[in-house]
Amino acid sequence: MKRLFVNAHILTMREKDTLLEHAYLVTEDNCITEVGQGDPPVVYDEILDMKGKLLLPGFINTHGHAAMTLLRGYADDLPLKTWLEEKMWPIEGRFGPEQVRWGTALAMVEMIRGGTTCFADMYDHMDQVGALVADAGMRASLCRGVIGLGSQTEREAKRREAVQFAQQWHREANGRITTMMAPHAPYTCPPAYIESIVSDAERLHLPIHIHLSETRREVEQNVQDYGKRPVAHLDQLGVFHRPALVAHAVHVTEDEIQLLAERGVKVSHNPGSNLKLASGIAPVLAMLKKGIRPSLGTDGAASNNNLDLLEEIRLAALIHKGVGEDPEAIPAETALAMGTRFGAEALFLEEEIGTLEPGKKADFVTMDISRAHWQPTHDLLSHVVYSASAADVQDVYVDGRPLMRNRELLTLDEERIRWETIRAFEKVSP
Amino acid sequence: MKRLFVNAHILTMREKDTLLEHAYLVTEDNCITEVGQGDPPVVYDEILDMKGKLLLPGFINTHGHAAMTLLRGYADDLPLKTWLEEKMWPIEGRFGPEQVRWGTALAMVEMIRGGTTCFADMYDHMDQVGALVADAGMRASLCRGVIGLGSQTEREAKRREAVQFAQQWHREANGRITTMMAPHAPYTCPPAYIESIVSDAERLHLPIHIHLSETRREVEQNVQDYGKRPVAHLDQLGVFHRPALVAHAVHVTEDEIQLLAERGVKVSHNPGSNLKLASGIAPVLAMLKKGIRPSLGTDGAASNNNLDLLEEIRLAALIHKGVGEDPEAIPAETALAMGTRFGAEALFLEEEIGTLEPGKKADFVTMDISRAHWQPTHDLLSHVVYSASAADVQDVYVDGRPLMRNRELLTLDEERIRWETIRAFEKVSP
Repeated sequence: MKRLFVNAHILTMREKDTLLEHAYLVTEDNCITEVGQGDPPVVYDEILDMKGKLLLPGFINTHGHAAMTLLRGYADDLPLKTWLEEKMWPIEGRFGPEQVRWGTALAMVEMIRGGTTCFADMYDHMDQVGALVADAGMRASLCRGVIGLGSQTEREAKRREAVQFAQQWHREANGRITTMMAPHAPYTCPPAYIESIVSDAERLHLPIHIHLSETRREVEQNVQDYGKRPVAHLDQLGVFHRPALVAHAVHVTEDEIQLLAERGVKVSHNPGSNLKLASGIAPVLAMLKKGIRPSLGTDGAASNNNLDLLEEIRLAALIHKGVGEDPEAIPAETALAMGTRFGAEALFLEEEIGTLEPGKKADFVTMDISRAHWQPTHDLLSHVVYSASAADVQDVYVDGRPLMRNRELLTLDEERIRWETIRAFEKVSP
Repeated sequence: MKRLFVNAHILTMREKDTLLEHAYLVTEDNCITEVGQGDPPVVYDEILDMKGKLLLPGFINTHGHAAMTLLRGYADDLPLKTWLEEKMWPIEGRFGPEQVRWGTALAMVEMIRGGTTCFADMYDHMDQVGALVADAGMRASLCRGVIGLGSQTEREAKRREAVQFAQQWHREANGRITTMMAPHAPYTCPPAYIESIVSDAERLHLPIHIHLSETRREVEQNVQDYGKRPVAHLDQLGVFHRPALVAHAVHVTEDEIQLLAERGVKVSHNPGSNLKLASGIAPVLAMLKKGIRPSLGTDGAASNNNLDLLEEIRLAALIHKGVGEDPEAIPAETALAMGTRFGAEALFLEEEIGTLEPGKKADFVTMDISRAHWQPTHDLLSHVVYSASAADVQDVYVDGRPLMRNRELLTLDEERIRWETIRAFEKVSP
């Protein structure tokens, strides 16, 4: 199947030739084969007129807990510890496969509608998530997050489950699913447990995804418990000797950033969640200066409270300017790269996605640039970052397959999902 | 004309009974006459089923320069001084009535689509703005902003123009338009000029709208030029002895906040603009503690880059939590009040708008709560603040008149405005 998209403005998000005006893009099966200006090819199976639309890479959400959409607005404006231990964990403890299934389906509706084509998910009952991703056609980096606070038997059962999931689903769904190993965080996993998961990751040739230094309090706790800050602690446990993706990294020092950069550790910056839970503001400028290219994540909908990656792109572009009183901090192109190109790197998928160029997978979205808040079209890249809305997304393609066309979802039954989500929540509601 | 809105969830934004579920609202001509639960009245001219919709007061944008939509994305990621003096002022100097007309019309399309029913505007060629507001049916607080940097003759001409505009348009358009006097800022107006405008405001019984302490640099300049910081300077010039609304107030000390509170000065907090231009973060928590109830403004689209007040509401709820590492800072209800009830107070319209209750003007909007990012509907107020999008706004009523129904604009020709905007910009493009 060869599709030709004509009359488009294309944000390729390559470092050079970032914006091509009046351009075309060709996909064959699941790949992009041409991106260019001038006369488009004359042989194709389907031609699509993109007049009034901007094509750009799908957004990549590098940290989240999709099923937590069930808890959107369930508890707000509380400290992280209270929120997590008194509100989230008790009700999450009652979640079964059904809650994860429908919560994740709802998350996927929201993500596709907002232009996200690929997401990282760390949760439980991950077989449900794998099956949904396979059916709905998204791309995902999945991991069974394990908390090592229970008995030795429980812990080992979880670890085995995580290994089994990672093995079974890696490169499934035409390669759209990849997996990682995920010890939840240094404060929820004893050191020996983390080490054993690092060994698993090594044996399976998989990366590690872990929460890191989200709050000031957990850093202090780490120093108290282990005599060192979390970065040194995880480095000693071997985490950073594997390919690794850390979420949050809010409370990291210059030296810690230096070490993360040296080890090639990927970072998922979650500005919305960090602001809302009052965790603080990650030193993203310092990371960029040391060569880390931070990606963006929404975190779970209970702490955000939506899965709108464009909102994270905008927050990343705005907050570091304001806090540092530096108007040149995180210019628009960097912010959008964080949500696309850097996101692909963070999930170890930079060979496949993140930019629009021949050889990459056909994962892209279109936005309606005819709306009032896009006028005049002085600078389309700036408009995506500073003015657009997730609701401007019109079409979503993943692996060359349309998942949404003119805002109509093609692979998910939104009405049923809405209804099942409410039912699934009611079953666990206190 | 008596309209009955049934089957609605209503966020009244009153301090008590903020949310009424399964409620109804009645409007007669331009006013709200009933808001209640239970059996609705049986006599009416029109009945509207609000199933799946949330009714709430229209958003109130208390600081902006509407016509600057023409310059959206025209210059980004620059320091305020460079941006203003090298980019904005030269091209704005070429703006005539036509540019203001179409730029403002575009702004109004965007504001109505995003649920804003009332806006403050400080600009030039304000007769154009007044005529547009009258036709399009919005509510507005308008002022001819005057910069006192030119010759004595120029200055006086501008002042006369401002006086004439304010006199002519105050309480026009069925009372929907009110006016203020607006010396642009302490750094653009000599002290005697400000004093003369204060006298004008006194004579006309009008409030004053002025920029205050937006950047660290202008505060330093004020100290250098006049030996005191801007708050004391303006207080001495009599500005705060009139009802006054100050925009930004980013660099204000505890003592200055205390003085502003004592004088009953209203504040327009512009988080998006302040972050993007890297001006800093206004001490909104300290203001709230001293009894100031800050409102919200988008500022011009050249520095934001959209006129989405819901985005400002969300930023206000998020950034002060993150910066202060205090998850209880600016809870959702306060943030939404800043965009509604406090906004009405800032424009001296609290008797007329800002909440939905009998006797108030019928200025309200509806939002579609059936969408994925509103599920489950655990907490509708939280969802407005933390999850909703301006694109969820379905209907917009001002003074009892529908300006948008199911996203169709009823008083503005969007396609023509888009076209005329581009043409108007081209005429002044360098």
